[in-house]
Amino acid sequence: MYSLNVRDHIMIAHSFQGEIFGPAQRMHGATYIVDACFQRGELDDDGLVVDIGLASETLKAVLAEFNFRNLDELAEFRGSNTTTEFMARTIFDRMALAINAGRLGKGALGLVRLKITLHESHVAWASYEGVL
Amino acid sequence: MYSLNVRDHIMIAHSFQGEIFGPAQRMHGATYIVDACFQRGELDDDGLVVDIGLASETLKAVLAEFNFRNLDELAEFRGSNTTTEFMARTIFDRMALAINAGRLGKGALGLVRLKITLHESHVAWASYEGVL
Amino acid sequence: MYSLNVRDHIMIAHSFQGEIFGPAQRMHGATYIVDACFQRGELDDDGLVVDIGLASETLKAVLAEFNFRNLDELAEFRGSNTTTEFMARTIFDRMALAINAGRLGKGALGLVRLKITLHESHVAWASYEGVL
Amino acid sequence: MYSLNVRDHIMIAHSFQGEIFGPAQRMHGATYIVDACFQRGELDDDGLVVDIGLASETLKAVLAEFNFRNLDELAEFRGSNTTTEFMARTIFDRMALAINAGRLGKGALGLVRLKITLHESHVAWASYEGVL
Amino acid sequence: MYSLNVRDHIMIAHSFQGEIFGPAQRMHGATYIVDACFQRGELDDDGLVVDIGLASETLKAVLAEFNFRNLDELAEFRGSNTTTEFMARTIFDRMALAINAGRLGKGALGLVRLKITLHESHVAWASYEGVL
Amino acid sequence: MYSLNVRDHIMIAHSFQGEIFGPAQRMHGATYIVDACFQRGELDDDGLVVDIGLASETLKAVLAEFNFRNLDELAEFRGSNTTTEFMARTIFDRMALAINAGRLGKGALGLVRLKITLHESHVAWASYEGVL
Repeated sequence: MYSLNVRDHIMIAHSFQGEIFGPAQRMHGATYIVDACFQRGELDDDGLVVDIGLASETLKAVLAEFNFRNLDELAEFRGSNTTTEFMARTIFDRMALAINAGRLGKGALGLVRLKITLHESHVAWASYEGVL
Repeated sequence: MYSLNVRDHIMIAHSFQGEIFGPAQRMHGATYIVDACFQRGELDDDGLVVDIGLASETLKAVLAEFNFRNLDELAEFRGSNTTTEFMARTIFDRMALAINAGRLGKGALGLVRLKITLHESHVAWASYEGVL
Repeated sequence: MYSLNVRDHIMIAHSFQGEIFGPAQRMHGATYIVDACFQRGELDDDGLVVDIGLASETLKAVLAEFNFRNLDELAEFRGSNTTTEFMARTIFDRMALAINAGRLGKGALGLVRLKITLHESHVAWASYEGVL
Repeated sequence: MYSLNVRDHIMIAHSFQGEIFGPAQRMHGATYIVDACFQRGELDDDGLVVDIGLASETLKAVLAEFNFRNLDELAEFRGSNTTTEFMARTIFDRMALAINAGRLGKGALGLVRLKITLHESHVAWASYEGVL
Repeated sequence: MYSLNVRDHIMIAHSFQGEIFGPAQRMHGATYIVDACFQRGELDDDGLVVDIGLASETLKAVLAEFNFRNLDELAEFRGSNTTTEFMARTIFDRMALAINAGRLGKGALGLVRLKITLHESHVAWASYEGVL
Repeated sequence: MYSLNVRDHIMIAHSFQGEIFGPAQRMHGATYIVDACFQRGELDDDGLVVDIGLASETLKAVLAEFNFRNLDELAEFRGSNTTTEFMARTIFDRMALAINAGRLGKGALGLVRLKITLHESHVAWASYEGVL
């Protein structure tokens, strides 16, 4: 299995609902360093997992929706705790849509798996991985 | 598959038995930077892989048993070489016990896999991964 | 010159005033990975720059005031943009006070310089360094 | 599953064929930080995934063939784009041969999987993983 | 003293003249991860060392001249070995010109020092630091 | 001012004397990731701060004396606590001697400063810097 990983980041504010979150129930924020890992069994005709330029641009475009935002104010997250693992899944879903819509190029239709990892600090990170 | 990773570290002394270990047969030591990666298919009711506070505390408690110790002096390791990969398995077993005993909370009973990685330097690391 | 560095982190929300800040004028947030670098010409009687346990605890205590907070709501920051470089200075001032108040031990009174660095992402960080 | 990872690096020049590569069609280069991750179900008789000394030496020997080279001039790569993912596979194949030839010791014959990762920058990396 | 650091990277090919360079006399290449560290005594009126957006864009523009290039083919480097330390100085000089020309904004005219660091691998890096 | 940095590591055991060290009074150990940073005002005739090959070899030779050792057993450290900052100074002194003895080449006689940093974990490091 081949994989290619690109990295970008976002800076967001949010708060959590539920006693389990302790002080994180207060409005706070995070820098998420985001890794998108594209996977496939064989390389495409150009010897690539995916066009790294398109992959980086698309990741940036997906993240732009959340960058410099208070996630509590976004309608789609109403009723959800935007934990690191939840946001990993959210970004996975958007990237999967972008791949299937051909935004990463025709070669990218051969991708079989995707893993999104969000690093919230030097001592904690979370990810979601699934088939495409 | 979702995962959440937390990081801590220990500083230990030990020595190895067997010619294959060369100069590492002498008493020496290591800083192990330890990553515990918790995995599950779906998030729990709070939108979490695991309570990150409990996960960090439990990892610290498991590691405390070995921190600032000469592993050669611990009865349980008699007859074993406490290599990085061996210690990854040892810490895996203790964390698995802690999870099953409910020390990471009721939500953590939904975890399905665990991976423990020990970084012994910037150029070498080892891990053990298994089902829970 | 000797130095000793310890690392911790905080997760905060804030917003900036001024067109120069572009989208960062919106409520957003950051993980700041914080390095405190203590400096002196000669080691103390224990062969130390500073007691690393006290240094780490004091850094954590200083940071606790800001951790999981919306900095816009703190009275002391009214009228200021809590940029990364501004926060580096803020944390420098508090650590300097703690050192001079003896909270890092008597040996720490021999410290001559302090540098505080805040990493806001894998591609940007800021610091403030001064004499004690 | 146990794994052990060792790291080394090479510095190479190359150019790519195909409009999809944009400016990377020009002669340029890369530092590849290379991770070799050896995997197996059970440890060998010495409590090891693999002899870390032999693993490191063999990785260095495999990489030496490419280090300080213009990959465009190597006959075996004629007609191929030596992308990061392509080079991950190339190094995988050579390490697999070395393992099967016994160059990592008899214990290494128990290895079941290998993953080679090449980091081309702090924001991009690629890998190839397969059975041995 | 305040500082702000931004990071980017380039991928270049080159070769060196002189026996001291051994195998690096052959055409090879490098990924340079480039840190630009801007320094000043007091923050500007916006509470900034420098506008981080302009700083990042200008660094990218300065690096674009070298990115995906064979440095041996650039007229300005004829007769020079484009070592990592030499390139740190080259990029320093261009950034200093850009600052003095006002490309980082009027606030940036208050900068007093600049340090450029080029990481050529995980085990080697070089820098040039000077007054502005 | 130019600088060049090379990195290596050692794995040692030791124990500390004095109540201030708490559990670190027990036999334990550390991986020290060691950075040697060579500094000078102008490059030598080859466009170098120092021959990176000789610098790396000499650092490895200096570290070999301590690698895979119990520092408590070395006669030269009798009566000293081999703290991270103490070891930074010890390695500084040996590297300075090696430079002055010409082991890093004639060009290296132009070096004016040296900084040795020892990383004991991902959250703590110490250094010693001085003139040559």
